[in-house]
Amino acid sequence: MSEGETPGDVGTVSLVGSGPGDPDLMTVKAARLIESADVVLHDKLPGPEILGEIPEAKREDVGKRAGGEWTPQEYTNRRLVELAREGKSVVRLKGGDPFVFGRGGEEAEHLAEAGIPFEVVPGVTSAIAGPAVAGIPVTHRDHASSVSFVTGHEDPTKAESAVDWEALAATGGTIVVLMGVGKLPAYAAELRDAGLDGDTPVALVERATWPDMRVATGTLDTIVDARDEAGIEPPAITVIGDVAGTRARVIEFLRNDGERGEGA
Amino acid sequence: MSEGETPGDVGTVSLVGSGPGDPDLMTVKAARLIESADVVLHDKLPGPEILGEIPEAKREDVGKRAGGEWTPQEYTNRRLVELAREGKSVVRLKGGDPFVFGRGGEEAEHLAEAGIPFEVVPGVTSAIAGPAVAGIPVTHRDHASSVSFVTGHEDPTKAESAVDWEALAATGGTIVVLMGVGKLPAYAAELRDAGLDGDTPVALVERATWPDMRVATGTLDTIVDARDEAGIEPPAITVIGDVAGTRARVIEFLRNDGERGEGA
Ligand SMILES: C[S@@+](CC[C@H](N)C(=O)[O-])C[C@H]1O[C@@H](n2cnc3c(N)ncnc32)[C@H](O)[C@@H]1O
Ligand SMILES: C[S@@+](CC[C@H](N)C(=O)[O-])C[C@H]1O[C@@H](n2cnc3c(N)ncnc32)[C@H](O)[C@@H]1O
Repeated sequence: MSEGETPGDVGTVSLVGSGPGDPDLMTVKAARLIESADVVLHDKLPGPEILGEIPEAKREDVGKRAGGEWTPQEYTNRRLVELAREGKSVVRLKGGDPFVFGRGGEEAEHLAEAGIPFEVVPGVTSAIAGPAVAGIPVTHRDHASSVSFVTGHEDPTKAESAVDWEALAATGGTIVVLMGVGKLPAYAAELRDAGLDGDTPVALVERATWPDMRVATGTLDTIVDARDEAGIEPPAITVIGDVAGTRARVIEFLRNDGERGEGA
Repeated sequence: MSEGETPGDVGTVSLVGSGPGDPDLMTVKAARLIESADVVLHDKLPGPEILGEIPEAKREDVGKRAGGEWTPQEYTNRRLVELAREGKSVVRLKGGDPFVFGRGGEEAEHLAEAGIPFEVVPGVTSAIAGPAVAGIPVTHRDHASSVSFVTGHEDPTKAESAVDWEALAATGGTIVVLMGVGKLPAYAAELRDAGLDGDTPVALVERATWPDMRVATGTLDTIVDARDEAGIEPPAITVIGDVAGTRARVIEFLRNDGERGEGA
């Protein structure tokens, strides 16, 4: 593959966000690209409703492969290039937005290095939609002039944790944690040590917008118990900050999540 | 209107995100609700392409009203309740996501107080999509384990700036500034004072996904000049951090924004 030019018979890769799981929250473009693609490479995160609508014949699950010759990410990178070189129109489908903790940046760089034309199709991220459908705005004029998205599950190959919970607490804004169910006790403690009030409202939103969505609420002091009582499991979003208190004020009239799985 | 119960003839309000401006980046649900709504209340942010597709007869612009009896926000709040009480199905259409610096939280609370049933329809936020279509992932395994969204245009009625640029710099993550064209010189200086390297990559993405989208790039030291040379104007997203350097590595193969309006 020569630099700068791509022969006419190379396919295109679309890095596509599928949103949080409700098929209605896919973008018009995502729905159309899935329809027209030759192959859709995906893992489990788009959720059962969206994956269930894609014909088996063009689905390829790249999420399960582990412990093999390549890491899942290396395998996906190679497979994207391979399929594009076969002239296929390829959709790389990712839960939420492809560039929010989705390894989409790495895939984009890999494709560019290999000389494969690609496009990015942003999606509705679970980091915003998860809180939203539970009645929680991630920013609020009165409560939060910033919001930070952070991973609770730090890359284990990194020497030290790159997440500075103290700095995040000091921003005074909302903190939204992805991949943060298991490590909740650790970062709740770190945030309290950093000076956040134990009464700070916290909500956990599990499988946001899926038919079996569940919500548990509490405070920095009580949320670990609320998680355990409700049995909250991944995938879930943790939202920390005064905005989480909005839910209680609006839930009676909110028509998004019904009365399913109320925690605390 | 009695508490807790709503009579059958009260309408519903949908707080709907329209995405960054490309009609294809609306959600399937947003497109359907706009189609079926009796009234669509909007300001200018959804952009000309999306607004142009909505029949004049059901559009109501609530963005221009100023200096009158009410502030624009108070007017919008009242109007939403008024229309719902007339039994209308109302779409409150907001650029990007309704809960990201969109006053959606306030509207939700106002509706709940008035006893009006409402739903939230999350959208693709410009804070993520703006950088993305310019080839910039807001998080990256190698460069950024957090991303913070912040407003550059602090509420002028607040006594002191609630944005703590020092804490944001200390997070070590990507910083995305909305409403941050005018104050760029001020916060670029604050971030340098807080210890961010002058060589930190920065990009400005104006009218992301609109037909006349433009991008200007530089560093914390050079971005103000780049802004001025390119003549970048609102609405634009500022993205600050190593991730902004990704654009240069992928742009040749990125099929999102063509070669329009390249800055620095
Ligand atoms: C690898 S990250 C990918 C995030 C995704 N790119 C996005 O923008 O939503 C996976 C994490 O996203 C969150 N997540 C994704 N979909 C979710 C959903 N429907 N409900 C709750 N959390 C979700 C969970 O925190 C999960 O552990
Ligand atoms: C009041 S905020 C609303 C943000 C919106 N709710 C969202 O999620 O994108 C307005 C700011 O959003 C940003 N913005 C909205 N649409 C944009 C676009 N298409 N391109 C660049 N920036 C945009 C600009 O920073 C603008 O000043």
